[in-house]
Amino acid sequence: MGMKVAALAGGVGGAKLADGLAAVLPPEDLTIIVNTGDDFEHLGLTICPDVDTVIYTLAGMAHPESGWGRRDETWAFLETLGVLGGPTWFRLGDRDMALHVLRTDRLRAGQPLSQIVRDAAQALGVRPRVLPMSDDRVRTIVRTIEGELSFQEYFVARRFEPAVVGFRFEGAASARPAPDVVESLERADLVVLCPSNPWVSLDPILAVPGVREAVSRRPVVGVSPIISGRAVKGPAAKMFQELGIAPSPVAVAEHYHGLLAGLVIDKADAALSPAVEAAGVRASVQPTWMRKPGDRRRLARAVLELAAELRRQPAAP
Amino acid sequence: MGMKVAALAGGVGGAKLADGLAAVLPPEDLTIIVNTGDDFEHLGLTICPDVDTVIYTLAGMAHPESGWGRRDETWAFLETLGVLGGPTWFRLGDRDMALHVLRTDRLRAGQPLSQIVRDAAQALGVRPRVLPMSDDRVRTIVRTIEGELSFQEYFVARRFEPAVVGFRFEGAASARPAPDVVESLERADLVVLCPSNPWVSLDPILAVPGVREAVSRRPVVGVSPIISGRAVKGPAAKMFQELGIAPSPVAVAEHYHGLLAGLVIDKADAALSPAVEAAGVRASVQPTWMRKPGDRRRLARAVLELAAELRRQPAAP
Repeated sequence: MGMKVAALAGGVGGAKLADGLAAVLPPEDLTIIVNTGDDFEHLGLTICPDVDTVIYTLAGMAHPESGWGRRDETWAFLETLGVLGGPTWFRLGDRDMALHVLRTDRLRAGQPLSQIVRDAAQALGVRPRVLPMSDDRVRTIVRTIEGELSFQEYFVARRFEPAVVGFRFEGAASARPAPDVVESLERADLVVLCPSNPWVSLDPILAVPGVREAVSRRPVVGVSPIISGRAVKGPAAKMFQELGIAPSPVAVAEHYHGLLAGLVIDKADAALSPAVEAAGVRASVQPTWMRKPGDRRRLARAVLELAAELRRQPAAP
Repeated sequence: MGMKVAALAGGVGGAKLADGLAAVLPPEDLTIIVNTGDDFEHLGLTICPDVDTVIYTLAGMAHPESGWGRRDETWAFLETLGVLGGPTWFRLGDRDMALHVLRTDRLRAGQPLSQIVRDAAQALGVRPRVLPMSDDRVRTIVRTIEGELSFQEYFVARRFEPAVVGFRFEGAASARPAPDVVESLERADLVVLCPSNPWVSLDPILAVPGVREAVSRRPVVGVSPIISGRAVKGPAAKMFQELGIAPSPVAVAEHYHGLLAGLVIDKADAALSPAVEAAGVRASVQPTWMRKPGDRRRLARAVLELAAELRRQPAAP
């Protein structure tokens, strides 16, 4: 009798709302489908930044400030790597390394990522289901005025400085959704688009054949990652601007055109509520900035309330 | 004008004597050629136990009791690996991991092991040259009454319990000595056979085409790894027994027949001195058990003195 929810999530903001949903829903009613477009290979290891952020956040192990990595981390590996002249630009903690090494070894042995993610989540005490969007390799390529850059090159090495002109999701066209991704969307009473970067966190998920179609057949509620024209974290607002779109909840509503029934927008953007509604999307004005764990739960409840409201009174087509 | 020394070494005992030689010789006069037959793949990482033991020991970083790994080690990686259900039978420390991950990544990129070893030794402050016996893959296979076992399977997983019937060094026949292995032997005024396991530590080195020939053309002095019929550490004595040979310095002298001019044997085995000499090998009776760093230096000096004595008065052919 519970409401089944499937949430699409990227990194930090997505993980926080997923954690809020996990706090207010029975675990069996929540599936989190996570972006793998920014996965990359480093030191021979396959790193899955968004999947790991979601797992660590739901396990209560995420670092409270940095937004990546673990709370209880030590750095003996990285320090020694530096002494040996190895690359230290990507911060790999001692405990975090266990996840990367084990995952890489199991991937090389031919095991699917989804199985590895399921086992890791289970081992760390995460109860809702966490699914990578695909077991096949998809890599987000950022097209910039300086040419194409791999996501981590753009994001970490270049600190998202080069202006973007577009995106490609290499491998997406031939990727299959991971087992149960489409099924969990079809089962869902509600699909949540978490407040993740629309261009590089959620679009890669929607680019996997079959996912957008499955999402479009369900009631969908999103949370705007843009507040007062800015992103809480990362380059989302900068990307909208560089693509010639004023960053706002309205731009977010239009970005997901044809998918979205409702959008939670921040109270700082209350004046934009009519414009969101004019785009055919029901707006709910709420505090959306998730500073404390309590904020995550409150935002999750606001999402579920907006969905309930839409069920009672659907948005105009 | 210094005496140039090339030492063949396996793990702990070999590393200790190499460390003693490093303390009494100018670094440019010492080359240590290390067994790679017990290298293995674990969790997707290439592990080189003997090379690492030699590097850590010469860097003053070796764990004083265990005989492997580092003195200043932490275990957050392994602990988390256990939580994740990964294999923990092979103890990988956080700092140690940096060496394994960087080596594996560079090997995959096509760099030769000898270059990786040189860089690691240099980064950790090791001044004598450390050379892996070969850049090519050689793997020691232990033939036992239960069938063939890989070295680590025999050594760690089976705790050298199955009785041995022989050994194979897979890949040795087509392996080339690493750059400068043969040259450093040809340049050497003395070749030292460290007190390592003759069967599985030094025989793999001698099995690389060209190495035995180069050693046989130089004055060679060894140190018996067998004291009072027992090995200080590991299965050397057990192997002699299982192969039908009474373990003793005499057996060691005979094992290296045709190579050895002199052998340092322990004072506990003083009575066997005539039998060693009867095998055509000059014996020097010394305390050979290396408990403290000072013992390593004293044993190194005893080896050099025996070599000097043999130069003055060669052994009977």
